[in-house]
Amino acid sequence: MSLNESALVIVQSILARTEELRVAEHTVAGARVLDLGIAVRGGLQAGLELARVCLADRADVSIVPSSIPGIPGPAVQVATDDPVRACLASQYAGWSVSAGKYFAMGSGPMRAALGKEAIYDHITGREEATHVVGVLETRKLPTEEVIAYFSDRLGLRADRLTFVCAPASSIAGSVQVVARALETAMHKLHELKFDPNKVVSGYGVAPMPPIGRDDITAIGWTNDAILYGGHVTVWVDADDDEIAAIGPQVPSSSSKDHGIPFRDIFERAGKDFYKIDPHLFSPASIEFCSLKTGRRQVFGRIEPDVLRRSFGG
Amino acid sequence: MSLNESALVIVQSILARTEELRVAEHTVAGARVLDLGIAVRGGLQAGLELARVCLADRADVSIVPSSIPGIPGPAVQVATDDPVRACLASQYAGWSVSAGKYFAMGSGPMRAALGKEAIYDHITGREEATHVVGVLETRKLPTEEVIAYFSDRLGLRADRLTFVCAPASSIAGSVQVVARALETAMHKLHELKFDPNKVVSGYGVAPMPPIGRDDITAIGWTNDAILYGGHVTVWVDADDDEIAAIGPQVPSSSSKDHGIPFRDIFERAGKDFYKIDPHLFSPASIEFCSLKTGRRQVFGRIEPDVLRRSFGG
Amino acid sequence: MSLNESALVIVQSILARTEELRVAEHTVAGARVLDLGIAVRGGLQAGLELARVCLADRADVSIVPSSIPGIPGPAVQVATDDPVRACLASQYAGWSVSAGKYFAMGSGPMRAALGKEAIYDHITGREEATHVVGVLETRKLPTEEVIAYFSDRLGLRADRLTFVCAPASSIAGSVQVVARALETAMHKLHELKFDPNKVVSGYGVAPMPPIGRDDITAIGWTNDAILYGGHVTVWVDADDDEIAAIGPQVPSSSSKDHGIPFRDIFERAGKDFYKIDPHLFSPASIEFCSLKTGRRQVFGRIEPDVLRRSFGG
Repeated sequence: MSLNESALVIVQSILARTEELRVAEHTVAGARVLDLGIAVRGGLQAGLELARVCLADRADVSIVPSSIPGIPGPAVQVATDDPVRACLASQYAGWSVSAGKYFAMGSGPMRAALGKEAIYDHITGREEATHVVGVLETRKLPTEEVIAYFSDRLGLRADRLTFVCAPASSIAGSVQVVARALETAMHKLHELKFDPNKVVSGYGVAPMPPIGRDDITAIGWTNDAILYGGHVTVWVDADDDEIAAIGPQVPSSSSKDHGIPFRDIFERAGKDFYKIDPHLFSPASIEFCSLKTGRRQVFGRIEPDVLRRSFGG
Repeated sequence: MSLNESALVIVQSILARTEELRVAEHTVAGARVLDLGIAVRGGLQAGLELARVCLADRADVSIVPSSIPGIPGPAVQVATDDPVRACLASQYAGWSVSAGKYFAMGSGPMRAALGKEAIYDHITGREEATHVVGVLETRKLPTEEVIAYFSDRLGLRADRLTFVCAPASSIAGSVQVVARALETAMHKLHELKFDPNKVVSGYGVAPMPPIGRDDITAIGWTNDAILYGGHVTVWVDADDDEIAAIGPQVPSSSSKDHGIPFRDIFERAGKDFYKIDPHLFSPASIEFCSLKTGRRQVFGRIEPDVLRRSFGG
Repeated sequence: MSLNESALVIVQSILARTEELRVAEHTVAGARVLDLGIAVRGGLQAGLELARVCLADRADVSIVPSSIPGIPGPAVQVATDDPVRACLASQYAGWSVSAGKYFAMGSGPMRAALGKEAIYDHITGREEATHVVGVLETRKLPTEEVIAYFSDRLGLRADRLTFVCAPASSIAGSVQVVARALETAMHKLHELKFDPNKVVSGYGVAPMPPIGRDDITAIGWTNDAILYGGHVTVWVDADDDEIAAIGPQVPSSSSKDHGIPFRDIFERAGKDFYKIDPHLFSPASIEFCSLKTGRRQVFGRIEPDVLRRSFGG
C-alpha cells in the first residue's frame, strides 16, 4: 500500500468511531475534513490515531508510562522499521500551508503526493496518489479557499482529499506532536547531511505535557516534551566514525538555545521563530546502534529539571 | 453501544477462550456465571479481561513495566476518553451485594442498569438493558438465591444475566482491583463535590502486588498498590483555583490514615472498615491538567518505602 | 490448538507481511524457510513475531520503555499464563541442531513434536504434529542436508516443515533472545529441581542491547541484557520455605561468574562455553509471588553499571 492508502485505512477506522473518539466529520467544498480537537473534545485515542495518520501507519504508536523522575504520567512511544517513509516522507511537518489568511502546519502523506520538498530527492516516498490524506496542525478548519489551494496544488478534485485537523492546544494534537521524538531526530540527521536511509529501524518516547491553551504555550510544552524529555534509539547502517562525528550535534543539548523551556527561548528571540536555532528541534537523548560495527553511542541526556520547570506542577 | 452491550462483547471474547484464560462457565438458576479465579487458576489475561468488563470496554487496559524503585514487576495501566462512564457508571464497586448469607462487592455495568445509586443523578450512564453484566468480587459463586436477588432487583429473567466473578485473592481479581487507580480518583473527586463530568480524559497506573491468600491480606495489598503506588493523570475542564482547592484532598496522603500499609490501618481500626477514613481510598499521586488554563498541578507522591513494607520481599 | 498449530498462525501472519517486515520466504528441498535477519534487514516487528513463534503464541510480547538508569531505549516484555508450555515446551533453545557442518540453536514448537528432551517427562507439551514449526538461531539458512536431517528426525515430509531463522546478530534475532528473560528463569528453576508446573503465570522484561556483528559479541550482549538487565515475576503454587531455599540460586548473581560482561566471562573461560557456569544463565532479578501463602520474595538485582559497561556508549 502507498502512504496515502495506508493513512486512508486509519481514516476509515476513525470514521467508524467518531462518537467514541469524540471527533467530527465535515465536508468542505467537497473535501472530507475531520476535526479531532478544534470544536470537539477529541482525546488520547484520537491523538494516537492522528499520530498513525501522520506516520502513514508505518509505526506502532502506544501510550506507556513515563519513567522520568517527577514526570509520572503517560508517555507516547513510537517504534518503526520504516523510519524514512514513516517519519520523513510522511510525518514531518514540511508543508507550511498558507492560503489567504489561513495558516497551518501540514504533515502526513499528502506531502509525498505533492513531492516537491527537496527531501524527496534523497529518500523514497514520493508517490502518485488518487486519494490524498493530510494532517493540519491548526485551530481553524480549512475553508473552501484552502480546499481549492490543496486541490490546485495536488491536481486532484476536492472529493479525493481528506484532512485530519487538530491544534497542538488539544489533547489529540499534543499526542501527535509528542509522537514526533523520532521524527525530529530523523529530520536533524538529514539536515546534518547524514543519509537518513542509513537508519534501518527507530524508536522514540516522550512524556505527555500539559495541554496549552494558546498556540505558543502548547507548542512550547510539546516541544519541551521532546527537547528535554524525548529519547530516541536508531539502528543505523553506519560506521563508528560517522556516528561519532555527527552524534554530538543531534540531541537538543547541541543547540546554543538548549537548557531553558522553549517558551523562554521564544521570548528571548523576540517572539521570532526564525531567530531560534533550528538545531534545537531534536530529542534530549539519542542512542545510535551501529549495524556495521555493533557499537552503541549515546548522546545528550533527559533533563527532568527543565521539564518540571516547563510543565509546572 | 450501551455499557452492558459493550461488556457483553468482552464476555463473548472470554467465552471463546475459556481454556486459554483458565476460566470456567457455569449456569446458576439460568444465569450465566463466569469464574475467573475462585475454583479456577485464571491469570493475568483473565484479569485484563475482567478489568475491561468492569470498565464496560471504555478504556484501554494493559500490562506495562512498573518504574517504581524496588517494585520491579508488572503494573496495570488504564487510559480512557470516557472516564465518567468507564469508571463511575460502570467500574466503581458501588453495589454491595447482600443476599442471605452471600456477600460480594458488585461492580460493572449492572449498576447502570439498576441505576439506583445517587451518583447516577450527577453523571450520564443510567441505562435500560435487556441483558445485564455484573462483576462480583467474591470467593463464592452466586447461588440460586443470589440470582433470584439480582433477577428481582433488575427486573430481568435470570437468562438475561451474566456475572463475572473473582476474589481479590486471585491473580485476575488482583489485576482488576489494581486497574482501579483512576476510578478511585474519579470517585473521590465526586465525593469532594468536584463535578466528575469535568474530567475529559484519564490515565492511571499502579503496580501488581503479591496475591493475598485471605481477603483481608488481598484487599490490603491491592489497596496499597493504589494508595502508595498508584499514579493518575486527569485532563479536566476546570479552573486553576478549583483544582488548587480540591487537589490537595485527592491523593491518599490527604488522609490521616495515610503512611502505613492498609493491613496495619485495618488492625488499628479494630478490624472495622467503617472506622477507616473513607478519604484514604485514592491514588498516591495525581496530576491535573487544566484544559481551561493549561496549568498542570500535581498532588501527592508515590511511596516506594511503604509499598515495599507492605508487599514484603 | 497445539503448539505447532499456534506457531503456524504466526507464520501465516509473517508471510502476509514479508515486505513490511523486511523478511524473505524460501523453499529449501520442499521445506518452507523464512529468513528474518540473515540476508534481509528484518527489524523490531519481525523480532516480535519471531519471539511469538518461539513462544507458540502463548505469551503477549511487546516493546516497552526500559526504566533502567542509563539504558534509556526500548525493552522487550513477555507476559504469559501458560509459562510451562510457552517457555519450556516451546521457547527454550533445547535442540542443538548439528547436521554435517551446519550448526544452529533450535527452539520453538518443533522441539515438542520431537519430544525427546528429558524435560518433556516433567512437563506437558510433547505433541503429535502433522506440520511443524522450528526456530533456528543461525547465520546460515538450512541446506538440503539440514532439511533431510529434520525430516528424518521428525518423521515428516519436508513440505510439512517450516523454519524461521535469524542470527543473534540481527535486530529480529536480538529481540527474540531478549524475550527469553522469563524462559531462562523457568529453565533454571527446572534445573534446580523446582517443579516448573508450579509456575502458574510469568512476566519478564529486559532491555534491548546493541546488535553485535559477530556471534560472540551478539550472544554476549543479548545475554547481558538478561543477566544484568532482566527482571522476572513468577506466580507460583509453592510454599515459602521451598521458595526461600531455591530463590537465592535463581538470579544470575548466584553464579560465581556473575558481575562482568558475558564477553569477558567467555574470554576468561578460554573461549570455551562449557567452562562457563551453566547457572549464570538467568535473569538479574526475580520476584516470586506465592499463591499458597501470598508471600513475596525477591532475589537478585538489576546491575545498571555492568549493563553500561557491556553495552558501551
